[in-house]
Amino acid sequence: MEERTLAAGPRVSAIVTLLTDFGTSDGYVGEMKGRILRLAPGVTIVDIAHDIAAGDVEAAAFVLGRTWRAFPEGTVHVAVVDPGVGTQRRGLAAEGGGHRFVAPDNGILTLVLDQAPLAAVVLPVPEGAAPTFHGRDVFAPAAAALAAGATLGSLGPSAGATLRLKPGTLRRTEGGVIGAIIHVDRFGTLITNIPGGMIQAGARVQIAGRAIPVSRTFGDVAPCEVVAFTGSGGTLEIAVRDGRADEVLGIGRGTDVQVTG
Amino acid sequence: MEERTLAAGPRVSAIVTLLTDFGTSDGYVGEMKGRILRLAPGVTIVDIAHDIAAGDVEAAAFVLGRTWRAFPEGTVHVAVVDPGVGTQRRGLAAEGGGHRFVAPDNGILTLVLDQAPLAAVVLPVPEGAAPTFHGRDVFAPAAAALAAGATLGSLGPSAGATLRLKPGTLRRTEGGVIGAIIHVDRFGTLITNIPGGMIQAGARVQIAGRAIPVSRTFGDVAPCEVVAFTGSGGTLEIAVRDGRADEVLGIGRGTDVQVTG
Amino acid sequence: MEERTLAAGPRVSAIVTLLTDFGTSDGYVGEMKGRILRLAPGVTIVDIAHDIAAGDVEAAAFVLGRTWRAFPEGTVHVAVVDPGVGTQRRGLAAEGGGHRFVAPDNGILTLVLDQAPLAAVVLPVPEGAAPTFHGRDVFAPAAAALAAGATLGSLGPSAGATLRLKPGTLRRTEGGVIGAIIHVDRFGTLITNIPGGMIQAGARVQIAGRAIPVSRTFGDVAPCEVVAFTGSGGTLEIAVRDGRADEVLGIGRGTDVQVTG
Repeated sequence: MEERTLAAGPRVSAIVTLLTDFGTSDGYVGEMKGRILRLAPGVTIVDIAHDIAAGDVEAAAFVLGRTWRAFPEGTVHVAVVDPGVGTQRRGLAAEGGGHRFVAPDNGILTLVLDQAPLAAVVLPVPEGAAPTFHGRDVFAPAAAALAAGATLGSLGPSAGATLRLKPGTLRRTEGGVIGAIIHVDRFGTLITNIPGGMIQAGARVQIAGRAIPVSRTFGDVAPCEVVAFTGSGGTLEIAVRDGRADEVLGIGRGTDVQVTG
Repeated sequence: MEERTLAAGPRVSAIVTLLTDFGTSDGYVGEMKGRILRLAPGVTIVDIAHDIAAGDVEAAAFVLGRTWRAFPEGTVHVAVVDPGVGTQRRGLAAEGGGHRFVAPDNGILTLVLDQAPLAAVVLPVPEGAAPTFHGRDVFAPAAAALAAGATLGSLGPSAGATLRLKPGTLRRTEGGVIGAIIHVDRFGTLITNIPGGMIQAGARVQIAGRAIPVSRTFGDVAPCEVVAFTGSGGTLEIAVRDGRADEVLGIGRGTDVQVTG
Repeated sequence: MEERTLAAGPRVSAIVTLLTDFGTSDGYVGEMKGRILRLAPGVTIVDIAHDIAAGDVEAAAFVLGRTWRAFPEGTVHVAVVDPGVGTQRRGLAAEGGGHRFVAPDNGILTLVLDQAPLAAVVLPVPEGAAPTFHGRDVFAPAAAALAAGATLGSLGPSAGATLRLKPGTLRRTEGGVIGAIIHVDRFGTLITNIPGGMIQAGARVQIAGRAIPVSRTFGDVAPCEVVAFTGSGGTLEIAVRDGRADEVLGIGRGTDVQVTG
């Protein structure tokens, strides 16, 4: 594959973020970065994460859903957790909320779609692309093209509906709401899908056989105590001050959480 | 929180370094990067580390103390290992030695303060800031402001004295000095707080029941032997050539080290 | 060591890639980055990997061999996995294939040399350089100098022949070829040194007592089945769909692989 710079002008000022499960020690991310910098000189590459658990599309969707909006409009977000590479799953470029996205059509965009409608196109697989490494041969060139000024429509035909992950439990009950833990962070904090706005003052969280009053933050409880609060992502979180809630409560992703009162 | 670009000119050329214990797989660092790039377009973000052990302020202080001076003057160093987030601990911006710093007031600046006097201000917590994520909502915006040209004084009121970690053991003895291991690096090398300048030619290091002559470097001993030398940070280190000193000697951070002769 | 900016003009637009086994949590990589940015303002630093297993020159050679060519011509690649630091091993700067390299003379350039002839010079060790940290005191300044426009010849005397790792097994047999696994990636995929071009249609791979037909990619077999194909690096790989080939087959780096038919 002979390639030339895609940029019209001398330097591309766009930002390209990278989110993968490739780790860094095999060189795969390095190849993607090189490809992008070769095709779009001057572009600013920002590492989001490369240590998503192998094949964990749900975790990548969570991280992408949290991070994309923090970046300047026009940013191109590349998200490649792609256990289906080499099968018939489609590759996508998408646009919405003022941002651009490049990712496999496997649900990784679910939490972005919850926040903004996206127009998506199907990326053709160029001749010679490695069937096991679309990150380098399909998604990186598409990201570079968008960063260098290509329109979404120039990259491929409209994708129509795109795949979404099964939405987590979230239903109102008499005087409350039932949701689920959708992520456990590095500190053992349990992050739920229950929006802070659905929680009444004086509410209690039912989890792992306990009833925990909703507080404002860590500092409201003593060390080693369990605390529930609206977290920095806007949803209910359960934590242990100076400890790990996942270990103290013995629960993790997928566990139901009930808020009452 | 509606935010606009803070930069007066079109692009900010300052460098912002990031040192956290956030890991990367939850998106927290990604949110910080996005926030900084949105507020200070063009800024160069440099990852120092995000894998500091959770809540290990001492380790972060060590890394910050080693790295800050290597960067160009004017660099803004963001250091957020912040187990006290959500309590009454203060957030700081500081300036000294030609560099700027943004960090919680929990001792993380201790080793910088050992090298340069700092003027510090207290960062106000903006309305709407997440009480559990000052990295994104307090420290990132302050770093962006400094990078974009804001003066330290414009960010908040003077902080007065700032918190320092308890200094490690370091006392002269008859014909020698007693210090301590303050860091164990990835290779198992034991880094002490004893300045190379305090060690006489022909001195011996007493540690874990052994007496080790001070050499110049690894190459001065045979493979698998213990070796002591003035390390790249300017203090005494104890290592094992082609091995791990922490495992061979069975000791770690906090252990006393005596130099005699 | 007093140092001034090496750049003639105001900003250096070159790319410098970093590949080390330093991890990030000790600050060593941070010091290298600061040093490079101080000496060559504006340079774009790209992390390839810092989590190469400690002292694993072979793994670093593999990653460098895969990644360098993806970058734009003129890129400076710094590769420091350097168990021999502090011994008589030489430090090198090299040029070839349109790229520049800075690395210890320990075989880390082997797979680059397989792809392009290199001219190399020996880097002098500046007075005051830490004998245990040439990454910061020898290789980073050399990389900055090259990025800022220095010629290879200005950095040191010609190196003559440089060290290469012992080539892996690769020999033609009657109707086939015998090679070896040279890398196991994050997903447990076994990467060999057998070029895809040496494999006939209908060939079978003999490995761990099994005979596996050569396919095109993962998607050609059922989940949990072993599959062999020409990988994204151009050589034969053995993988397990939705699983780990290293665990399923119980083999790793160094194991012989035979292709027949």
